[in-house]
Amino acid sequence: MNYSPPVRATLRLEELKSRVFTLPEHPDWIPYRTSYYEPRWGFCASHRQMADLVDGDYEVCIDSALEDGHLVYGECFLPGDSTDEVLVSCHACHPSLGNDNLSGVTVAVRLAQHLVAKRRRYSYRFLFIPGTIGAITWLARNRERAARIRHGLVLTCIGDAGGFHYKKSRQDNAEIDRIAAHVLQHHGEPAEILEFSPYGYDERQYCSPGFNLPVGCLMRSVWGRFPEYHTSADNLDFLKPLSLAESLRVCASIVDVIENNRRYYNQKPYCEPQLGRRGLYRSTGGDGVEGETFARLWVLNLSDGKHSLLDIAERSGFPFSAIQDAAECLMEGGLL
Amino acid sequence: MNYSPPVRATLRLEELKSRVFTLPEHPDWIPYRTSYYEPRWGFCASHRQMADLVDGDYEVCIDSALEDGHLVYGECFLPGDSTDEVLVSCHACHPSLGNDNLSGVTVAVRLAQHLVAKRRRYSYRFLFIPGTIGAITWLARNRERAARIRHGLVLTCIGDAGGFHYKKSRQDNAEIDRIAAHVLQHHGEPAEILEFSPYGYDERQYCSPGFNLPVGCLMRSVWGRFPEYHTSADNLDFLKPLSLAESLRVCASIVDVIENNRRYYNQKPYCEPQLGRRGLYRSTGGDGVEGETFARLWVLNLSDGKHSLLDIAERSGFPFSAIQDAAECLMEGGLL
Amino acid sequence: MNYSPPVRATLRLEELKSRVFTLPEHPDWIPYRTSYYEPRWGFCASHRQMADLVDGDYEVCIDSALEDGHLVYGECFLPGDSTDEVLVSCHACHPSLGNDNLSGVTVAVRLAQHLVAKRRRYSYRFLFIPGTIGAITWLARNRERAARIRHGLVLTCIGDAGGFHYKKSRQDNAEIDRIAAHVLQHHGEPAEILEFSPYGYDERQYCSPGFNLPVGCLMRSVWGRFPEYHTSADNLDFLKPLSLAESLRVCASIVDVIENNRRYYNQKPYCEPQLGRRGLYRSTGGDGVEGETFARLWVLNLSDGKHSLLDIAERSGFPFSAIQDAAECLMEGGLL
Repeated sequence: MNYSPPVRATLRLEELKSRVFTLPEHPDWIPYRTSYYEPRWGFCASHRQMADLVDGDYEVCIDSALEDGHLVYGECFLPGDSTDEVLVSCHACHPSLGNDNLSGVTVAVRLAQHLVAKRRRYSYRFLFIPGTIGAITWLARNRERAARIRHGLVLTCIGDAGGFHYKKSRQDNAEIDRIAAHVLQHHGEPAEILEFSPYGYDERQYCSPGFNLPVGCLMRSVWGRFPEYHTSADNLDFLKPLSLAESLRVCASIVDVIENNRRYYNQKPYCEPQLGRRGLYRSTGGDGVEGETFARLWVLNLSDGKHSLLDIAERSGFPFSAIQDAAECLMEGGLL
Repeated sequence: MNYSPPVRATLRLEELKSRVFTLPEHPDWIPYRTSYYEPRWGFCASHRQMADLVDGDYEVCIDSALEDGHLVYGECFLPGDSTDEVLVSCHACHPSLGNDNLSGVTVAVRLAQHLVAKRRRYSYRFLFIPGTIGAITWLARNRERAARIRHGLVLTCIGDAGGFHYKKSRQDNAEIDRIAAHVLQHHGEPAEILEFSPYGYDERQYCSPGFNLPVGCLMRSVWGRFPEYHTSADNLDFLKPLSLAESLRVCASIVDVIENNRRYYNQKPYCEPQLGRRGLYRSTGGDGVEGETFARLWVLNLSDGKHSLLDIAERSGFPFSAIQDAAECLMEGGLL
Repeated sequence: MNYSPPVRATLRLEELKSRVFTLPEHPDWIPYRTSYYEPRWGFCASHRQMADLVDGDYEVCIDSALEDGHLVYGECFLPGDSTDEVLVSCHACHPSLGNDNLSGVTVAVRLAQHLVAKRRRYSYRFLFIPGTIGAITWLARNRERAARIRHGLVLTCIGDAGGFHYKKSRQDNAEIDRIAAHVLQHHGEPAEILEFSPYGYDERQYCSPGFNLPVGCLMRSVWGRFPEYHTSADNLDFLKPLSLAESLRVCASIVDVIENNRRYYNQKPYCEPQLGRRGLYRSTGGDGVEGETFARLWVLNLSDGKHSLLDIAERSGFPFSAIQDAAECLMEGGLL
């Protein structure tokens, strides 16, 4: 058990059993237990293994030490055109567990690799930290810098076969909250938006009232709600390569919106400019227009300097990428 | 019939019957009728009694006088730390009726007794007045003082076995409206929130546009919608002691929220303070926290001087009392 | 086909057929097709007529000219007490079609006749213009004047037997949007409110971002969604006199609200004035009040200079006309 103080002793089986955590309903799984800030010692084992032990004396040894040490964390910073930052945070305090730990690290690393080669409007900061104390430590050492964070995501439990869950930031309607909801809505897989609450992973720290950062939490299955959570069954078999890949794709889509969500001005705001003459118009042959053209009409109509492309995507029902494509075409055509 | 002018005459049965109101569908009940501001005389009687009368001449006598008099009302003022007032108003114009009259008086008296021994943040004013003209009179004589009213309740039809109804003030989203809705939501009995309308009891006067006071109306069955309303069947049998007791409890809970709904500042707003070390943390043994601890996390997270405890209760889904308890613990722990 | 360049040629039946549009699923109908801004020539014919043609050579003649000309439109201006304007716009570019063209012209003409004899608070401008280019032309020539438009309606497809549809303006919650929704809700016929989109009829131009005028579009069946649309079957038989009459009535009701939607001040704002003494009160005999009296109580209660009569109608659930009648009675009684 994590946080156990050192012990060397000989115990009778009865005494030993009182110190061992097992999962009777999953006799082959080993639970993952901690005793943070309470110096209690103990072991975690499979129920079957304990059942097989015969009566007798058992030698017990925990070679640990509760003493001051160092907190180690990883930080990866990718500078962008602006000093405004996007934060991606995952916990790395018990990486033997797959979904609840390793999946977040994996997706974050791949997302950083995806971004490193790109021109970036924002700067990106990736944190690989022990849960709770890691976020607290980083925030304590970077209080000024934290104020530069414009959008943030905590990634956890993001590699299993379950549908997506996005937990909103304390701000409740921050741009990252709208972006995550929009991307998940158009992504195709089942997804659910959860309200903020002051419990969970490191969004608790980023969303504490002194910081109140726009940081949400992206998950597939929600921590604590799947039986493998905090057991040895949350292993590499529980992670699905396709799920990890889709999770990365969702993260990349979120970053795409973050990078490209700007406000534009229609340069011909008095009535509709003739798109046909500029090669930007396609009818359906009947009396409608093709989706591509319709997206352009939306961008022209709402680009008054007040509506962002995300606003336009939300109001029109088009995915952000279609609205962004429309904006690019219109800019090339000199209309935006 | 109330407001009848005096009369002394001898009538034949036919003539008499044209002057008597009965309820054929409830032959044993006597209706309660008035003829306010219209000098018409008449009687109210049970249908059965009238049916039993034999032909002949009947002597008719109403010993009344329509002349200037005095309007009498009761007023009970409990001063508090602040001159800001909470108004509790009930009508006492026809106390022979139980639910529509006496129930409001009864609950108001008990609420005053409950409050008299307590330290009060607000001052409390209880009015026992004739409906309409009583409220108009009090407001006419206290126009300046009325401006001190911060929250108010009209109590009527509050002793029968029906579920609760709260009719919102004209302001529609006043603190009293939110408080009543919150308390009723967590009280357990069925309850319905009704929109404001400019008809009903004395909230009509308190909510007239010149005053526009935050005064709602708390009822069980809604006046005019139960058959006993304004009949002799609205008597002591129609009142249920348990209903009256629960109504009083709801009123006391509303007052509790009024008294304790404050805004606090988290004194450790940068990340979560360690609650365990302060004896304020209890986990469920697994990976969750107990409700009591969770309420504390909510209060810490939202106590930024902008959110009241009611805001926190509404957002978290906890009842106000749990949020208030959490705030008290955190204050004792020096965290708030 | 509209916009065909001139042609004189002799074609074999096969070649001819490649130039003729028909509707195989409606063999007796002739489609209405255009080739705006693309100089392609062609014909529209019934499928049956084309099927009857025998092999052979056919002489083809389109006596047209693609050259600079004049754009003709009709404009009818009815001055009112204010220079603020109400715009009624309909397209008159292919009046051989009934619902999609003629119905809008018809209702607009009758509405103008209805208004000409009345005293008008607003000035009214009726436009009879070719679709798209007509609106663009008028707006280009009247950019200053357009700023006076306070409310506007595009009328189209308003004579068939279908239920009403109102498409909201780009502003989304303009007064005209609320008025149209209110009138349709109380009119009795089925009606649907549609969100704004930057495609459709001339509201596209009036709602372009440089103008952003509060102009919605009132229809019965929605253009493009009924099979007769843009075919010879959209003829006088497709128009229903009763539908046209009801459409005119809805337009007149909308204008009524536009003309009469004002804010008033209750002259006795402290408590309820006694309506009975002023002959403005009628009870239902029981404990309620009649609808007429109830509407007066609503107007008195909300007439604080902030709520318009439309606000009061929306909040009370009464139709605007009942609220307006109440306001007039109260004004006569010196209470407003």
